[in-house]
Amino acid sequence: MLPNDIAAAAVMTDERPGAGAAGVSGGAAQAKARAALPRIAITLGDPNGVGPEIALKSARELSRLQIAQPVFVGSPRVLRAHAARLGSAFPAMRAATALPARLPPDEWLVLRGAEEDAFEPTFGAVAPEAGALAMQAVERAAALCLAGEVDAMVTAPVHKEAIALAGYAHPGHTEFIARLAGCDRHAMMMVADGLRVGLVTAHMPLSAVPPAITQRAVLEAIRVVHAALRRDFGVARPNIAVLGLNPHAGEGGVLGREETTAIGPAVRAAQADGIVASGPHPADGFFGAGAWRRSDAVVAMYHDQGLAPFKTLAFGRGVNYTAGLPIVRTSPDHGTAFDIAGQGKARPESMLSAIRLAVDIARRRSGP
Amino acid sequence: MLPNDIAAAAVMTDERPGAGAAGVSGGAAQAKARAALPRIAITLGDPNGVGPEIALKSARELSRLQIAQPVFVGSPRVLRAHAARLGSAFPAMRAATALPARLPPDEWLVLRGAEEDAFEPTFGAVAPEAGALAMQAVERAAALCLAGEVDAMVTAPVHKEAIALAGYAHPGHTEFIARLAGCDRHAMMMVADGLRVGLVTAHMPLSAVPPAITQRAVLEAIRVVHAALRRDFGVARPNIAVLGLNPHAGEGGVLGREETTAIGPAVRAAQADGIVASGPHPADGFFGAGAWRRSDAVVAMYHDQGLAPFKTLAFGRGVNYTAGLPIVRTSPDHGTAFDIAGQGKARPESMLSAIRLAVDIARRRSGP
Repeated sequence: MLPNDIAAAAVMTDERPGAGAAGVSGGAAQAKARAALPRIAITLGDPNGVGPEIALKSARELSRLQIAQPVFVGSPRVLRAHAARLGSAFPAMRAATALPARLPPDEWLVLRGAEEDAFEPTFGAVAPEAGALAMQAVERAAALCLAGEVDAMVTAPVHKEAIALAGYAHPGHTEFIARLAGCDRHAMMMVADGLRVGLVTAHMPLSAVPPAITQRAVLEAIRVVHAALRRDFGVARPNIAVLGLNPHAGEGGVLGREETTAIGPAVRAAQADGIVASGPHPADGFFGAGAWRRSDAVVAMYHDQGLAPFKTLAFGRGVNYTAGLPIVRTSPDHGTAFDIAGQGKARPESMLSAIRLAVDIARRRSGP
Repeated sequence: MLPNDIAAAAVMTDERPGAGAAGVSGGAAQAKARAALPRIAITLGDPNGVGPEIALKSARELSRLQIAQPVFVGSPRVLRAHAARLGSAFPAMRAATALPARLPPDEWLVLRGAEEDAFEPTFGAVAPEAGALAMQAVERAAALCLAGEVDAMVTAPVHKEAIALAGYAHPGHTEFIARLAGCDRHAMMMVADGLRVGLVTAHMPLSAVPPAITQRAVLEAIRVVHAALRRDFGVARPNIAVLGLNPHAGEGGVLGREETTAIGPAVRAAQADGIVASGPHPADGFFGAGAWRRSDAVVAMYHDQGLAPFKTLAFGRGVNYTAGLPIVRTSPDHGTAFDIAGQGKARPESMLSAIRLAVDIARRRSGP
């Protein structure tokens, strides 16, 4: 047995009902403080990617910082395989199919599916089984959120091709979770410090974007972002900048009409509602001139228009947040990184930022 | 008469044939050195915007640095109106309808149209006459380049709505100059230090972009950028990164097919030609991770995909370069800035960078 396998074997115990509270906990006061920490469900993402690794690394940091109680959601076998690759010690883990009222004090809980899975990761491979495991975990985590058993969910990256192969028609996390939460008004937002970018459209081919840019869609995105800024980010009177769709924001109609027919009217309708909104602004000059610094959020029309400048400004610190949901959900701003999966090289900073933001929002929603 | 008008009156003389060489020049050696400087045609752009102002400010800097001989191309009356607003002294200017073999040593030459125009600027206004004047200057400057009377042309910004009102069907400088030069294989490139971004499509509505992303169009853009890197930037064996069209570069076809049907095949065709090319890369992660640092140029599929990250990284230092032309043409990376036109606030740095790049490329093309 290799040293890595020893480490892995050491961290995973089976489900043993009743054994939960028997740890080597340090005093009643400490236990009470920990019990007051928000519970954050962390889904493992695609088991062949870096998700389980960054989940492990982030949870270790959470335990150290005592800012949240992590609950892993996914396959214990997958988590074990990744832990083995990391070759460092983690707290003992307990697999369960339901969440206890009180989390075990010195163990990590892994909420597995009702059926034990036999999947072993093949690092870097696109596989339908991997996509299915990833999305089943998302379903369980969303159910925990909706039932109030956890305070927020943070999702490690899935692979869109793998989830498509697994038969999931939803193009990504955001759309899938919105459906699970029964919510049709939501918006993908990227957040890093003072920079917040909301999207009118997210995971769709570029050719599908222009027809989707209607006055209604833009206005709903502005409203969702506005409500999120107030409710989730504590901005009393948010200032929202709205981008155009076309180059130079259509330049008076010469380079496209959506600014005139949809985006401009949506901005004016939002203003009529009392929202401080401006635009449509040309995307290139807006980011180039640093105009985003004067806004609480930017509403972009499509994925790359918002995310390419966002990541240029904030790579590694960005968090993906789904605005408009009844539950709190965040995720890191990177993908499955198949090229470095299982190598111990993945950096958990973005995942940790995602967890911190989820904690902040959950606390703000639950009131002072 | 206001002080500003006095200043303006002082800087403009009429065309007086034969008076050219009678200045207060400082010695034959200096005159010879100046005659060896590249001649750069500077078009004034939209007369109601900041173009004439940044042309004046840049030319003053050129004279100070002695790196090029400026030739203004546009309306003397417009230049006078802008100079009046600046309220500072400029060299005397001489209006002419043709370029002399030798430029007057201590004056600036303004190449006007055959007909005297009566246009007076209305700062900040979109006007068809303004668009027409701007584009006529571009035509004259391109003719000078094609005839070898100047070494390069640098264009101050035009307003796309104004030029459309003036009846110019071309969506912008790039396309118009390419036609004047009889060139159908060209590419708009943005350049700042080591960051160079070429575009497959430039000034068109976003809805027109996906159908324009064909294997042939992408391959031609790669070839044009490759040739420009070698010929104009002195990169012996360029490394070119090609972006995808769709979010996540289509994520294996789930979010769009152009990567599979057009962009991927174009990259492989370029490689088969011996070009070092990679991609399609997802645009957001590519810029976010700083991967552009490892490439001599990036080929983006459309305007905002390339320019939003570019300007985020390089605002105020960027230069627009038209690759693939028989003539050398650059321009600043900003627009007409109608909101500050005629106020003396416009910064000439980008225009100066454009002139410097034009000088560099002209020198490289003319050989050591």
